[in-house]
Amino acid sequence: MSQTSNYGRDDGPMDQLIRAFANLPGLGPRSARRIALHLLSRKDSAMKPLAHALDHAAETIRTCSACGNLDMADPCRVCQDTSRNARTLCVVSGVSDLWAIERTGAYKGRYHILGGLLSALDGIGPQDLRIASLLERVRHDGFDEIILALAATVDGQATAHYITDRLHGNNSGNQAVKITRLAHGIPVGGDLDYLDDGTIATALKSRA
Amino acid sequence: MSQTSNYGRDDGPMDQLIRAFANLPGLGPRSARRIALHLLSRKDSAMKPLAHALDHAAETIRTCSACGNLDMADPCRVCQDTSRNARTLCVVSGVSDLWAIERTGAYKGRYHILGGLLSALDGIGPQDLRIASLLERVRHDGFDEIILALAATVDGQATAHYITDRLHGNNSGNQAVKITRLAHGIPVGGDLDYLDDGTIATALKSRA
Ligand SMILES: [Zn+2]
Ligand SMILES: [Zn+2]
Repeated sequence: MSQTSNYGRDDGPMDQLIRAFANLPGLGPRSARRIALHLLSRKDSAMKPLAHALDHAAETIRTCSACGNLDMADPCRVCQDTSRNARTLCVVSGVSDLWAIERTGAYKGRYHILGGLLSALDGIGPQDLRIASLLERVRHDGFDEIILALAATVDGQATAHYITDRLHGNNSGNQAVKITRLAHGIPVGGDLDYLDDGTIATALKSRA
Repeated sequence: MSQTSNYGRDDGPMDQLIRAFANLPGLGPRSARRIALHLLSRKDSAMKPLAHALDHAAETIRTCSACGNLDMADPCRVCQDTSRNARTLCVVSGVSDLWAIERTGAYKGRYHILGGLLSALDGIGPQDLRIASLLERVRHDGFDEIILALAATVDGQATAHYITDRLHGNNSGNQAVKITRLAHGIPVGGDLDYLDDGTIATALKSRA
C-alpha cells in the first residue's frame, strides 16, 4: 500500500489517470484526484462517454488550413460559409476568441487565428505565430478591412503593432487595407475570452 | 456557423467533448472549453495520453468487494496486506478519505468505505450506503476497534451516530467492539479530504 502514489510511490493506471488530468489547464493534483474518483465510480455514465468523446474529437476535428479554426471540415464552416463577408478579416489570438466573437453574433466576416501573441518574455516571435500565412492571405485574397481583435495587454498591442507594420510596409498593394482595432469597452489588461458578450459586441461596433 | 453550439446550437464532437468535461466536478462550461482547446491543439502530447489513461483505468481498476476501495486487485492491496492489523477497522465516507489517511502513514489497519454519508437533505438513506456490508463484516470478521473517521459535519456525525446504534444494538456479540471517532484536530465543518496530513495524523493519534 505504501507503494501506491495516491498514497505513496507506485505508478499504476490510477496514478497515470490522475497525472493526465493534473496536466490540464486549471487543474491541480487535488482536483485531478477528485475527477478520477468521480469517473471510476461512474464508469458507464461518465468515464466511457468522456473516453468516447475524446476519441471521436481526436479523429474528426482538425485545424482549418485557411484560418486556423478547429472544425470537422477543412476549410472550416466559417471559411466555407459564402453568406459571410469575404472582404473583412478578423485577426484573433486563439480559437476561444473566435468562439467568443461568434457568440456575440455581431460579426459576419472571416477570421485568421494567430495561435498566440508575440511575447518577448515567453520568447514567442513572429515565426511562432501564423503571421506569414496572414500576410500571404491578405496579399492573395484581398480585404477591405482587417480587424485586429487582440487583447488590450502589452503582448496583444505589440502584436497588433507588428502586424500593422508588416501589412503596411511589406507590400504597397496593402496600403489601401483599412486596419482597425477593437475599441473602448475592452478593460485594459483583460483577456478577450473572459469578457461578456455585450462588451465584445460594443467594442466591435465602435471599432476604429 | 450559427449552427455550432460553441457559438450556437449544433451538437458536434467538439460540443460533446466540452459537455463531457463540463460535467466533471469542479469544472464549468468555460473551463471545459479551455481544456478541450488545450487538448485539440496537443493531440499527440496530451489528448491521446489522456484517452489512453481513461481506457486503461476503466479496464483495470475495480471496486474491492471487501472494503469498497478502488484498485487493480480484488480484494485490494490494503485488504490483501497481511502485515496490516486485521483487528482494527477504519470507516470512511469515500476513497479519497482512505487516500488522505494513507498519506499520513499513521494508520495500519483495515478500511471500510461507505460510499457517502447519510443525508436527509439529499435523500441518502442507509440502504444507499455500504452499511449493511459493514455490519455483516463486523459480525463475520470480528474487530477490536472500529474507527468512525467521518467528517465533522451534520451528515458525518449523523452517520457515525447511526452506525454506532446499529453496531451496538443489532447483535449482542458486537457489544464488546470499541467504537472510536477522530478526535480534536478536525475543524468543525471541514471535509477530511481537504485537511493537511499532520492534522489528520494528530486526530488519529488522539482518537477517543
Ligand atoms: Zn477556416
Ligand atoms: Zn479492499
